[in-house]
Amino acid sequence: MVNIAILGFGTVGSGVAEVLTRNGGLIDRRVDDLVRLKYILVRREFPGSPYQERFVRDFSVIENDPEVDVVVETMGGIDAALEYTTRALKAGKSVVTANKELVAAHGYELLRLAKEHGRGYLFEASVGGGIPILRPLTSCLAANELSQVTGILNGTTNYILTRMIQAGLTFGQALEEAQAKGYAERDPSADVDGHDACRKICILAALAFGRHVYPDQVETQGIRAVTLEDAGYAASQGYQIKLLGRAIRQPEGRVMAFVAPHLVPGGNPLSGVEDVFNAIAITGDAIGDAMFYGRGAGKLPTASAVVADIMDIAKDLRRDHRNSWEEGAPDLVVSPRELASPWYVRAGAREGELQAALGQLQPLSRAGAPAGETAAITAPMTQPQLEERLAGLEVRSRFRVLA
Amino acid sequence: MVNIAILGFGTVGSGVAEVLTRNGGLIDRRVDDLVRLKYILVRREFPGSPYQERFVRDFSVIENDPEVDVVVETMGGIDAALEYTTRALKAGKSVVTANKELVAAHGYELLRLAKEHGRGYLFEASVGGGIPILRPLTSCLAANELSQVTGILNGTTNYILTRMIQAGLTFGQALEEAQAKGYAERDPSADVDGHDACRKICILAALAFGRHVYPDQVETQGIRAVTLEDAGYAASQGYQIKLLGRAIRQPEGRVMAFVAPHLVPGGNPLSGVEDVFNAIAITGDAIGDAMFYGRGAGKLPTASAVVADIMDIAKDLRRDHRNSWEEGAPDLVVSPRELASPWYVRAGAREGELQAALGQLQPLSRAGAPAGETAAITAPMTQPQLEERLAGLEVRSRFRVLA
Repeated sequence: MVNIAILGFGTVGSGVAEVLTRNGGLIDRRVDDLVRLKYILVRREFPGSPYQERFVRDFSVIENDPEVDVVVETMGGIDAALEYTTRALKAGKSVVTANKELVAAHGYELLRLAKEHGRGYLFEASVGGGIPILRPLTSCLAANELSQVTGILNGTTNYILTRMIQAGLTFGQALEEAQAKGYAERDPSADVDGHDACRKICILAALAFGRHVYPDQVETQGIRAVTLEDAGYAASQGYQIKLLGRAIRQPEGRVMAFVAPHLVPGGNPLSGVEDVFNAIAITGDAIGDAMFYGRGAGKLPTASAVVADIMDIAKDLRRDHRNSWEEGAPDLVVSPRELASPWYVRAGAREGELQAALGQLQPLSRAGAPAGETAAITAPMTQPQLEERLAGLEVRSRFRVLA
Repeated sequence: MVNIAILGFGTVGSGVAEVLTRNGGLIDRRVDDLVRLKYILVRREFPGSPYQERFVRDFSVIENDPEVDVVVETMGGIDAALEYTTRALKAGKSVVTANKELVAAHGYELLRLAKEHGRGYLFEASVGGGIPILRPLTSCLAANELSQVTGILNGTTNYILTRMIQAGLTFGQALEEAQAKGYAERDPSADVDGHDACRKICILAALAFGRHVYPDQVETQGIRAVTLEDAGYAASQGYQIKLLGRAIRQPEGRVMAFVAPHLVPGGNPLSGVEDVFNAIAITGDAIGDAMFYGRGAGKLPTASAVVADIMDIAKDLRRDHRNSWEEGAPDLVVSPRELASPWYVRAGAREGELQAALGQLQPLSRAGAPAGETAAITAPMTQPQLEERLAGLEVRSRFRVLA
């Protein structure tokens, strides 16, 4: 018998309870043991819930029950989640979570604590929702020296960008629609300003390259600056605008990591990832390019990943369920400024002027473009090179192009 | 110390040796043990090979060496591969392979033998080359009741179809090009007649649904009947023609499995999978839809998957590395005839005639279509329904449409 306690009963917590219950037979058979949901820690009443007799309001009941093997933290945020995760690990329980904010901020210390106590700290659901990505990264791709991870990591922004491109909505209109559909929160800044994608690329970078990358080390730009005009110019040559989280291996063990809108060429499989879907592309020295695609959020997809982690632990409570990485460092993360790439530039300038400043260009067009505006794609160059060449021009937008 | 013996030194075998050597430090660190390549079983000379002192010509040297923990079978085919795999498992060694033909024909008995001897039989590389798919299916998606697996499982045919669509080559021209590039064999029938895809969908179906599916139970149609005309009509409405292997859960524990060319609509992520790339889409009750994409063949991608299996075993030699499924049965597999789907039909008939026979149609057009030819997409119906309605018409092509 393996006993589970869920902390929190919001979208993810109730989804985990639902999957554990609905697929219970299948789960027990595959784990070859009985996986039982013993407690759910709640703060308020849920009248009529079928889980009534499992509700507890005091974490110490869970902490002090030696029968509890796995604690599933679905509270979100940092403070209480950090406290309860720490206490659970110290009490000899493994912890599973979808809490990307906590993992990105405190993953290193919590993984170390888990190791000290011979328990697991697993968080497959923290990146890409239901998409299997962390376990493939650490297990199926373990024979590879990975060089790059590139992801569409936030479903809300991908939905907004898709609607701007396909339905001609402005950013504001698309955001309102996403809020009406429940894809975006009332305060959308964690999504649209890129913070959510930033936390996820931190976790991916840490697993791929082996050291903790902190969110405040990662240059993060959201999608507020992307306009309908930019989407139109991009589409004229088959580009899609996507918010990408990127992590690139650097010499001497360092890591380049950043989040920014990019133009993605039509031939790249990331360009076809639409609506709320997420995708993570990786490059390794043996496998070459591979991509993982699916629903990056939602109750049941996220619960699917959480329960897979629970089953992994339940199959063998004593095994080393290694997620692991080393300590971060202030000089670990390299700014993307020196990364040479083609750039998309839209400027209040004639094509000749822009060409004089930037050299060889691939011009872009769109219906209804105002006179005196030019948009184009440059040859590869670094950000300082671009900025120097654009000095004195009226630049309206500029984004990297994924090469 | 974990000692490895590779059987065979062709593309896959030499790739495995290369990855084990090149990424040795990284592999030892991640396994937390020394992984050593001790033997390579060869039948001929390889003058100048750096692995000279590891070559042996007699399998019994490997079989009888108690230091050998993992045997990597890369010989391909059935006869000797089956014999050596059986002997290795009986001698208490785990076996890793990329041999889809052997797994599809004898997976059940070899998995049972491995279990009896407390060893692992792993074959991640047998489907999708380097793409992590089998382990995600059995591990990351373990909380799901899976309902469907749909795959572009053969890179050679996908290359041929891509070239027909994008460059306007005939099937014969595209095949010649694929042979010139080394993507297709001199005798291409295992690829173009769908046998390779059939073996892979058998393995996926067995892992997804739990019972052995034999290749001769799976209706298999290759791509020889796909014409440039069909590709043209399909493209007019954004469809791509893809050879799909499909497995669909049926009531009472049965399985529908088949291989056939399909028209895939532009919005489906499988439609963007081009050239020699493979992709496998799965549907589960919790995760919804997910897709795995990458290089389905090639020396290093395949070796990447083989070495991941080796590492998985090396980390814990005694653990149950469960790939497992139950025995097959003559009545397990259901024919796709009763699967209702839209159909693509091209016939020597006027649109009115075709509509009279088939009812509501979505007409397709192409430049240079001869007078008196109509191509269209039907409403969903089963194969017998379609055949009955088409009786008496001059049908030139007909393929399923992936709904």
